[in-house]
Amino acid sequence: MAVGSELLNPYFQDTNSLYLTQRLNDLGMKVNSKSIIGDDWDDLVYSIQKALDRSDLIFAIGGLGPTQDDRTREAFSWVLQKKLVFKKELFRKIEQRFQKRGISMPSVNKKQAYIISEAEILNNENGTAPGLWVQSDSKDIILLPGPPHEFKPIFEQSVWPRLQKHRQGYLKRRVLKITGLTESRVESLISDIHIHAPTLSLSLVAYPGQVEIHLCGYSQKRLHLAERDAEELKNSLLNRLHESVFSTRGEELEEVVGKILVQEGKSVAVAESCTGGLVAHRITNIPGSSRYFIDGLVVYSNEAKSCFLGVTPELINKHGAVSSQVAEAMAEGVRARSGADFGLSTTGIAGPTGGTLQKPVGLTFTALAWKGGTTVERNCFLGNRENVKFQASQKALDMLRRHHHRNSG
Amino acid sequence: MAVGSELLNPYFQDTNSLYLTQRLNDLGMKVNSKSIIGDDWDDLVYSIQKALDRSDLIFAIGGLGPTQDDRTREAFSWVLQKKLVFKKELFRKIEQRFQKRGISMPSVNKKQAYIISEAEILNNENGTAPGLWVQSDSKDIILLPGPPHEFKPIFEQSVWPRLQKHRQGYLKRRVLKITGLTESRVESLISDIHIHAPTLSLSLVAYPGQVEIHLCGYSQKRLHLAERDAEELKNSLLNRLHESVFSTRGEELEEVVGKILVQEGKSVAVAESCTGGLVAHRITNIPGSSRYFIDGLVVYSNEAKSCFLGVTPELINKHGAVSSQVAEAMAEGVRARSGADFGLSTTGIAGPTGGTLQKPVGLTFTALAWKGGTTVERNCFLGNRENVKFQASQKALDMLRRHHHRNSG
Repeated sequence: MAVGSELLNPYFQDTNSLYLTQRLNDLGMKVNSKSIIGDDWDDLVYSIQKALDRSDLIFAIGGLGPTQDDRTREAFSWVLQKKLVFKKELFRKIEQRFQKRGISMPSVNKKQAYIISEAEILNNENGTAPGLWVQSDSKDIILLPGPPHEFKPIFEQSVWPRLQKHRQGYLKRRVLKITGLTESRVESLISDIHIHAPTLSLSLVAYPGQVEIHLCGYSQKRLHLAERDAEELKNSLLNRLHESVFSTRGEELEEVVGKILVQEGKSVAVAESCTGGLVAHRITNIPGSSRYFIDGLVVYSNEAKSCFLGVTPELINKHGAVSSQVAEAMAEGVRARSGADFGLSTTGIAGPTGGTLQKPVGLTFTALAWKGGTTVERNCFLGNRENVKFQASQKALDMLRRHHHRNSG
Repeated sequence: MAVGSELLNPYFQDTNSLYLTQRLNDLGMKVNSKSIIGDDWDDLVYSIQKALDRSDLIFAIGGLGPTQDDRTREAFSWVLQKKLVFKKELFRKIEQRFQKRGISMPSVNKKQAYIISEAEILNNENGTAPGLWVQSDSKDIILLPGPPHEFKPIFEQSVWPRLQKHRQGYLKRRVLKITGLTESRVESLISDIHIHAPTLSLSLVAYPGQVEIHLCGYSQKRLHLAERDAEELKNSLLNRLHESVFSTRGEELEEVVGKILVQEGKSVAVAESCTGGLVAHRITNIPGSSRYFIDGLVVYSNEAKSCFLGVTPELINKHGAVSSQVAEAMAEGVRARSGADFGLSTTGIAGPTGGTLQKPVGLTFTALAWKGGTTVERNCFLGNRENVKFQASQKALDMLRRHHHRNSG
């Protein structure tokens, strides 16, 4: 249960439950339902009653703050018919939190020192509302504060160890991130990998420019069995998808490319037209990228392509700015002028306007230049402007990654 | 109710409910609770029963697909004790959808031609699952497919007109987007704007580099009263916050800056160090930005700053690459070399490493150069690398916007 009226407006989304789901899955538990309830007393009481009817383990997140709207504590106390009791020690702790910041405690915060009778207090080092663990009729009820930077530490420090008694098994997760293949192509490549065991599961998630396979191995008794199964399934998938998989440890493509460059002691410079700075932005999102990123040029105009990269006006006139020839000349130009080991370039039509029959919106050329030559790829991407930009940036980064694979494997 | 086991794993989030909430709010209706249920038959039946106990208007989204897992239709039919009936015309429509794509209909899709007896069919032009509107014991139950590109058009075309009978009032929304002020500064500036009327509401949402005020005016009977109240409150807020508000129509800052440049017939070029291409990326996210964006230089190395922008090594040695002097020289350099009307620059320490006592992580200088001069701002931003990059890009774009305000107001 996520509690709070702000979760029922059109702007906020409950993200704590995703984190909680992942951790419960790790214990072999499936989440059967989630609910989001406002601050209305009747709704809250009704939802708590329904949850107690159905479940042995209930998480209620949010509504533990100091204001009148925050009544999760009160509602559970009412439904469970357990009193709220004042805890002097807890009160002092809350007071001290304010004193440390040089302010006196607002009187409203006093109510946070009341706990449901017999509940265990789960220490909150990042806020005033402690978590509470209530046992009632062999049910476990866990109340946690809503702000994620309070929720997560309390969960990890105080809830996770106590949850071990609920463990139903061991689950190990693997994520394969793929680029350069469509979702249906991935599906057909892995379609005959039969998942015999009921302890294995696999699901595909597709984004523009990226497909992910999320797989889980499960064992009721042994962590190493779950791990072995997950690892075996991962390896069968890798045997089908080979170097189309760019990461098995959660890294994004720009991180993988960064690691390759650090490992090889090489550097890169980029010349972007249609991606408009996104390739440079992604590369420089990685801490330490100044070690291998030399510079980036965002050359929207033909003049800038000539002036900064030495792409001749004749070449642009002959083939058009969106052409394989210009992409090649851009990659070679930025490599030569920056002194980088690799030059990457993009040119294309991001849309929504500017397309023609011969050169439709989504058409892009990406090129990679290195000491030994230059290679260029032509693609026609679907989607809106931001999707086209992202897919083109993905393709450019992937050309550098695949070049490394071809030359090291 | 959002239905589907994929909504109960750690990777997916239900976004349809946010859209639905906004549209229900527009009709003067508040959403009291949301629930997310998997494909389990018992859970589904139980949740439907509970929803019918409590509500007169129920939306169930998802679970209308062709597979065995999709049983929303069946579960409602069971709980409502209404038969599922085969609709020949609907069957033909589904068949035709496949024929158009040159494939024959998979047999599993046949079940999508069954509807709950007496339900109204809500036509789906973007998929095979139609929506259904069921009336039962004076309750309205609306079943809609889960994919957002199917859900939204059906909602707008078929559900919205029929929902008018449920209208409880008129709600008008305004969003003020603010940059350059912290959340607490915004709060204190508007703290004495009393919201007398119970028909007005206001909430603050803070992101790094941006604060938003979401306000609503409400009237039970008259749209123009809701509009008038919302407009009056908006204007009182504008009177306090002045040009710190960069948008009242939902635009992002890069869009506002783009409109200013188009309107003035001016152009911009950017020189980025710590933002690493993000300023150029944001400017070029706007369709038509090629009219005013000349070029962008991402100059991470000191050599690139000298080579492309003419920032002298002496200046860099004397003041350091992260200094107001270098920021100014970068802005002036990129303006001069590109021939743009405005030059924007950023230099700073994005982190997580590279900070010193004198120049900590988060320190940035942003500069704007124009025909009449150059101005520079020093800021120390909090947050991780991506947050610092974003806030610095926000500051650079905002300098251009505020320059326009000073010179046009």
